[in-house]
Amino acid sequence: MTSVFISEVGPRDGLQLVKDFMPTEIKLAWIAAAAAAGLREIEVCSLVSPRVLPQFADAEAVIDGALRIPGLEVAVLTPNLRGVERALASGAHKITLPVSASEGHSLANVRKTRAEQVVEVRRAAELCAAAGRKVMLCAGISVAFGCTIDGQVPEADVLWLAHALAAAGAQDISLADSVGYAGPAQIRSLFRAARAEVGPLVTTAHLHDTRGLGLANVLAAMEADIWSFDSSLGGLGGCPYSPGATGNIATEDLVFMCASMGIDTGVDLDRLLAAREIMRSGVPNETLHGKLAQAGVPPIYQEAFA
Amino acid sequence: MTSVFISEVGPRDGLQLVKDFMPTEIKLAWIAAAAAAGLREIEVCSLVSPRVLPQFADAEAVIDGALRIPGLEVAVLTPNLRGVERALASGAHKITLPVSASEGHSLANVRKTRAEQVVEVRRAAELCAAAGRKVMLCAGISVAFGCTIDGQVPEADVLWLAHALAAAGAQDISLADSVGYAGPAQIRSLFRAARAEVGPLVTTAHLHDTRGLGLANVLAAMEADIWSFDSSLGGLGGCPYSPGATGNIATEDLVFMCASMGIDTGVDLDRLLAAREIMRSGVPNETLHGKLAQAGVPPIYQEAFA
Repeated sequence: MTSVFISEVGPRDGLQLVKDFMPTEIKLAWIAAAAAAGLREIEVCSLVSPRVLPQFADAEAVIDGALRIPGLEVAVLTPNLRGVERALASGAHKITLPVSASEGHSLANVRKTRAEQVVEVRRAAELCAAAGRKVMLCAGISVAFGCTIDGQVPEADVLWLAHALAAAGAQDISLADSVGYAGPAQIRSLFRAARAEVGPLVTTAHLHDTRGLGLANVLAAMEADIWSFDSSLGGLGGCPYSPGATGNIATEDLVFMCASMGIDTGVDLDRLLAAREIMRSGVPNETLHGKLAQAGVPPIYQEAFA
Repeated sequence: MTSVFISEVGPRDGLQLVKDFMPTEIKLAWIAAAAAAGLREIEVCSLVSPRVLPQFADAEAVIDGALRIPGLEVAVLTPNLRGVERALASGAHKITLPVSASEGHSLANVRKTRAEQVVEVRRAAELCAAAGRKVMLCAGISVAFGCTIDGQVPEADVLWLAHALAAAGAQDISLADSVGYAGPAQIRSLFRAARAEVGPLVTTAHLHDTRGLGLANVLAAMEADIWSFDSSLGGLGGCPYSPGATGNIATEDLVFMCASMGIDTGVDLDRLLAAREIMRSGVPNETLHGKLAQAGVPPIYQEAFA
């Protein structure tokens, strides 16, 4: 494999915990700059009640602005059918529903059992089929590698859930290390099992760098034939249980690692770092992560990015 | 392989760039705490002129104190024969001489060509053989994966140097990504080539996390049959060319990754984090790195560390 697909989730997963509202025009400038840097898919918002997450009160305006960027796949996340309806009305190209791998996390996150959330995915698939336009429905299996509430998550639970989600009509399945518990051996093991038992529908790794293993886990996922990754510019995001802890893997470090291996991402790193500055201007009180921005691109890599 | 050997280099590589002198008693308390956590080898100082690096003006006192810790392998680094003589007189168990993979770095770092530094290693081996006690002589090939001065470093140069160092009497060879240029593919390629052509004398990876790829590079090195790593508690250290940039890979994150994979390091993580606090007290103006200390050990890993 000589290319990797990156879905930028910063405007959604990154902003989710940011208390200060980022003005809509900065969100859109950031999204436009990230797209101009070569990112082909951006998760631009979460479709939830603005009472729960005021950060996404401007969701439809952000989607609308993002849809005006030529060639950009506009992705959204939503936990429920109300959000799916909003997504379909908005014109978003891709809708991801989170489904927790553990029962405890499912009840805490979406107030439904895992089986009930699978039914939501089936209903979402029906809504998408009736939408009269092409829309991609994805299921993101949260806490697939361990859970802060239920602890260890058996591989069998994740495989059962992935099968059920495929049967329910999900067109694409990602496995998420939402809390940064996974190590490389577990990543390889679970992705290999999921690919073998559920098939090529399992495409994507959503990894957090909470304990510094994010890029090692990317490497392990590649070894399990996974070539699609969610990441967040500047590692924006975090964990509500660990103040100051890192969130998603940093897009710029991921792009650099791929480039170092001769793996194409389609991303221009200089432009990506410029997009990072726009994002930074909108979150002045947040600590950004990712090490490439501090250390810079080594001159010997200029050719790789030319 | 189910175990990894870690050489803690914080008191040497970590302190090298720290301007404030760390009092000898804090250095020794840190070293003792790191040894008590299970680290079996610690590089405790650099034997250079105190005019060049005042931080190591107390080198002999630190070596002497470290030698009193039962079972600890006391390692030192020195660029020249004067330092080798001091090391032999001090009773240190292991002496590492740095040899640059690029000519430009060699001239800048030790004011000798690579070939001249190989001769130094030969003379050091003769001194060690005449010392009347067992002492391990190691050669650390700096900038083996790229150089801030000369740019790309051909694999052939590193392999030639490793051969020459083995012939000169080095008993152990490490390859160092001193400036954080390496990616996983290059790590795998060069270590595989070195193991195949030079043999099992090539044991150790000395990796920096300058651009966030440190632990991914560890994983890649493991795949090339490398099971010995240098690291620094709290990722102490840095790069004179990138203020604020990360230095060595963080010992605690490395231990955590190994534990997540069922690979034994012999290190008790709670005690290691306690040693980190002692170290922190001695470098109040330094930014520490490593993510585990911030995020904490997940409860599901308690068994792995019991």
